[in-house]
Amino acid sequence: MSGERLIYLPLGGAGEIGMNAYVYGYGPEGAERYILVDLGVTFPDMDGSPGVDLILPDMAWLMDRADRLDGVFVTHAHEDHVGGVGILAAQLNAPIYARSFTAAIARRKLEERGHDPDMVQVCDAWPSTTDVGPFKVGFLPVSHSIPQASGMVIDTPAGRLVHTGDFKLDPTPGLGEPFDPELWASVAEGGVRALICDSTNVFSAQPGRSEAEVAPRLKDFISEASGMVVATTFASNLARVKALAEAGIAAGRSVCLLGRAMRRMVQTAEETSVMAGFPSTIGPEDATQVPRENLMLIVTGSQGERRAASAALSRGKYLGLEMQEGDTFLFSSKTIPGNEVGVARIWNAYSEMGVDVSDDQGGLYHVSGHANRPDLIAVHKLLNPQIVVPMHGEHRHLREHVKLAKAGGRTGIVAPNGAMVELSGNDPRVVEYVETGRVYLDGAALVGALDGVVRERIKMALNGHVAVVVIVDDEDEALDDAWVQVRGLPDTGSSGAPLQELVEDDIAALMGRADRKTVRSDEQLEGAVKRVARKTVMDEVGKKPEVTVLISRLVTE
Amino acid sequence: MSGERLIYLPLGGAGEIGMNAYVYGYGPEGAERYILVDLGVTFPDMDGSPGVDLILPDMAWLMDRADRLDGVFVTHAHEDHVGGVGILAAQLNAPIYARSFTAAIARRKLEERGHDPDMVQVCDAWPSTTDVGPFKVGFLPVSHSIPQASGMVIDTPAGRLVHTGDFKLDPTPGLGEPFDPELWASVAEGGVRALICDSTNVFSAQPGRSEAEVAPRLKDFISEASGMVVATTFASNLARVKALAEAGIAAGRSVCLLGRAMRRMVQTAEETSVMAGFPSTIGPEDATQVPRENLMLIVTGSQGERRAASAALSRGKYLGLEMQEGDTFLFSSKTIPGNEVGVARIWNAYSEMGVDVSDDQGGLYHVSGHANRPDLIAVHKLLNPQIVVPMHGEHRHLREHVKLAKAGGRTGIVAPNGAMVELSGNDPRVVEYVETGRVYLDGAALVGALDGVVRERIKMALNGHVAVVVIVDDEDEALDDAWVQVRGLPDTGSSGAPLQELVEDDIAALMGRADRKTVRSDEQLEGAVKRVARKTVMDEVGKKPEVTVLISRLVTE
Repeated sequence: MSGERLIYLPLGGAGEIGMNAYVYGYGPEGAERYILVDLGVTFPDMDGSPGVDLILPDMAWLMDRADRLDGVFVTHAHEDHVGGVGILAAQLNAPIYARSFTAAIARRKLEERGHDPDMVQVCDAWPSTTDVGPFKVGFLPVSHSIPQASGMVIDTPAGRLVHTGDFKLDPTPGLGEPFDPELWASVAEGGVRALICDSTNVFSAQPGRSEAEVAPRLKDFISEASGMVVATTFASNLARVKALAEAGIAAGRSVCLLGRAMRRMVQTAEETSVMAGFPSTIGPEDATQVPRENLMLIVTGSQGERRAASAALSRGKYLGLEMQEGDTFLFSSKTIPGNEVGVARIWNAYSEMGVDVSDDQGGLYHVSGHANRPDLIAVHKLLNPQIVVPMHGEHRHLREHVKLAKAGGRTGIVAPNGAMVELSGNDPRVVEYVETGRVYLDGAALVGALDGVVRERIKMALNGHVAVVVIVDDEDEALDDAWVQVRGLPDTGSSGAPLQELVEDDIAALMGRADRKTVRSDEQLEGAVKRVARKTVMDEVGKKPEVTVLISRLVTE
Repeated sequence: MSGERLIYLPLGGAGEIGMNAYVYGYGPEGAERYILVDLGVTFPDMDGSPGVDLILPDMAWLMDRADRLDGVFVTHAHEDHVGGVGILAAQLNAPIYARSFTAAIARRKLEERGHDPDMVQVCDAWPSTTDVGPFKVGFLPVSHSIPQASGMVIDTPAGRLVHTGDFKLDPTPGLGEPFDPELWASVAEGGVRALICDSTNVFSAQPGRSEAEVAPRLKDFISEASGMVVATTFASNLARVKALAEAGIAAGRSVCLLGRAMRRMVQTAEETSVMAGFPSTIGPEDATQVPRENLMLIVTGSQGERRAASAALSRGKYLGLEMQEGDTFLFSSKTIPGNEVGVARIWNAYSEMGVDVSDDQGGLYHVSGHANRPDLIAVHKLLNPQIVVPMHGEHRHLREHVKLAKAGGRTGIVAPNGAMVELSGNDPRVVEYVETGRVYLDGAALVGALDGVVRERIKMALNGHVAVVVIVDDEDEALDDAWVQVRGLPDTGSSGAPLQELVEDDIAALMGRADRKTVRSDEQLEGAVKRVARKTVMDEVGKKPEVTVLISRLVTE
């Protein structure tokens, strides 16, 4: 075994919350065989990625070595773990392994992008394992906020790894497998070389709370609610969706699911038998016939997403249904940082309608799906690994999690995206830094975050845009006229004259005085025109716009 | 007095948190005399207002009636109350009244914009009053998170109004006037017609906490902190800045203030005698000579602002000072919703440096400056107004505050921006809806939020931009060539060919087949070119770009 090594390389998720993608490798240096755990996405925002559809980890490093990739394992069906499968899996060209519910979601993603869904193979839970290259891999059930979430038990010639995926310690998760400390302890019996561990909630000082706490509170809330009740939560949190539906039925209400994601998740969970006994629901058309005090809607859009059902209802009638004064709206969810403004927007729209809105009230109607600080300590103790490698978290979470491991007398290492860690030596150490980054799905194209495409859009958003045409005749004489159009700048500035005309005049003057050498050079002419356009706009409206110069050189035919 | 009426009209701040601007009027309908309370701004974001410098309330309604505006009263020196003074006061052309500290800030704003600072008149606190038109107005000291915050006591022929401004009930505010229930009770003795009341914290169920709670905790924190200590808070929270400085001195550290706003606020507070005994500080150059364990920096940028000192230090050396592993950073502040990502960005940058970062830890190192729900109830009782009109809050806050008033047996009314409420009748009622909105300070220009200028920029950010030139000769023949430049779109799409050339080819083809009628009409030609450009880009990269078409019609000279 000398000369062989075990490595861990996060390509996404370590240094951020979202787009998880972790490589494990074993073999001689430079000839390791690889597996990938998770292939997630993260979501764009106007600040950094306007117009972008999805953000994915840059998998170039792994694609260059795709011939040595033996499999992709997906821990669970949240978008930040499975969302990249449809977009990138074909390029990675390796079988995808998941448990049945996750597999069903992954398959649909492949189909939607025109790929073969049979790339996905369904695995049973631990103690069942799959041999993949030098690895023997099992899906260890964990509790989280979606069915069939799993940690990965990865046996390697250099020892056992446990990769938690996203998890919490919930003895009563409402749906699916409760956290089973005996099972986890049995996994640790032969010793755990390294625990690669979810870090998102490391700053949460209280022990995590069980999903089971929420159901009775929802029952109370809905039984006392007036008018039509509309509740939103994450569509994939099926334990919660079911608890909401049951609370509605218990309060004598018909239940209607609104939003494609919500209906799909329920359907997929039923088809894969991870959920049974979901109360019968009615469609929106039937719902319009039910007296509002006997109706409950469970809707998508807990984060204020503009296209989701909650936002549609906040704007007026949606599928024949409409909120009214005296109705009740419940956020059975937590607002993810960055979404506060969108959530407040729909809350205020409901307020204007006279709808009474309640949020989770500091945890009354929602619990987190991640392990808090005391839970992390408990898992460290339970698995007793030689090494703790924090994953899934911003840098601050990873660093704090290492501190926690060290406080418990363990070895820990901060390994952000691109840090290749050797886990097989005496001490874990970073042996290489691999170039990583983000790729944008932008319409139908994949563009690198650093390619400048989106940066150009941001600049236009900040500074406005001026398009200028100058025409040069076949004797290299510039025409005195210039044509200008401005976008995203005021029509008039401090002088009161139309901005467009002012820029046209100043460029025409430039063209009149420009020497032959400048006119002959596209580069020089463009530079001169840009300077004039920027100066005129700056003087008039105090902004330095982006300028596009189109030089038309006429050729006598 | 028959035929005369007392009206309240919020132009900003009622339906949002920020840009406060409230009109009070008294007189015959249509001939009322007005005062304005506060003239604030709110801050832009990439989502809705990219590239904008500041957002102001649209004051057009009041400007049309500026001859009847007798004065502008500024409750305190936070930007959302005073920030519009330099930009709009000249157009309103009325004297500005404020207490000394607020007046000093307002004067500087006028000077910075080239206006006469003597528009600002300094007023003493209640029981001193100023006669302005039909109003007698006094500044009632309140506690808040800035010195000399005041509510307005507005005596009118139709009774007394109390406009709280932003406030909390703090018996030990650290700096400035403690909340004085006896003074407030005395104001209420003759009866209060209406209480116009801060609503921002109406959803906070616990009583507000005193600024005095924070100082000893800061002392403990800083005495135990390792390395250089850097603390940030809102520059205008001078009680906090002073407590931080005193905690630093007590821990044997030299204190250095970083950030222009921080130094200015301290200087203004000293010049206007609202603060005395601030510990002596050192400049950044001297600070570089102090051993780091004996040094404390108090810096701007508690909200993660990219240009503030905290962000500069997170990027590396700033004014010769640099954070290192083992140093300590403290957010003695709360993150305002919408700023989470920026705050996390600098926190993570510090984490990468090995700096230990602490936030307010759920209130340990920060308290709010606003009255919570129980405090609002207390003020309702103390002032016992006939009417409660909630102000400063989003719609949901205003509505909840009215519910609170009604639960206490009082009359309340939700009056969002533009709702003119008559306060002199038997019951308060909305008598008119006035058009209101937002104005953007965009570079040097003021543009209406609905003018489309910023919307055009947002569209370019989302969709990218294509500029096209087509040239038509003096016989209305289109040249077959087209010149195209793309911005914010990938260089190549699904075909692998350069996007620019594909669009040029498709437009050239269009020009070749376009009939004379289309070519002669700018509108038709532009429409046809746009459709072709959009279709080509959509087919290639899956996005529908903004297209600027420049038509050059050559004229024989």
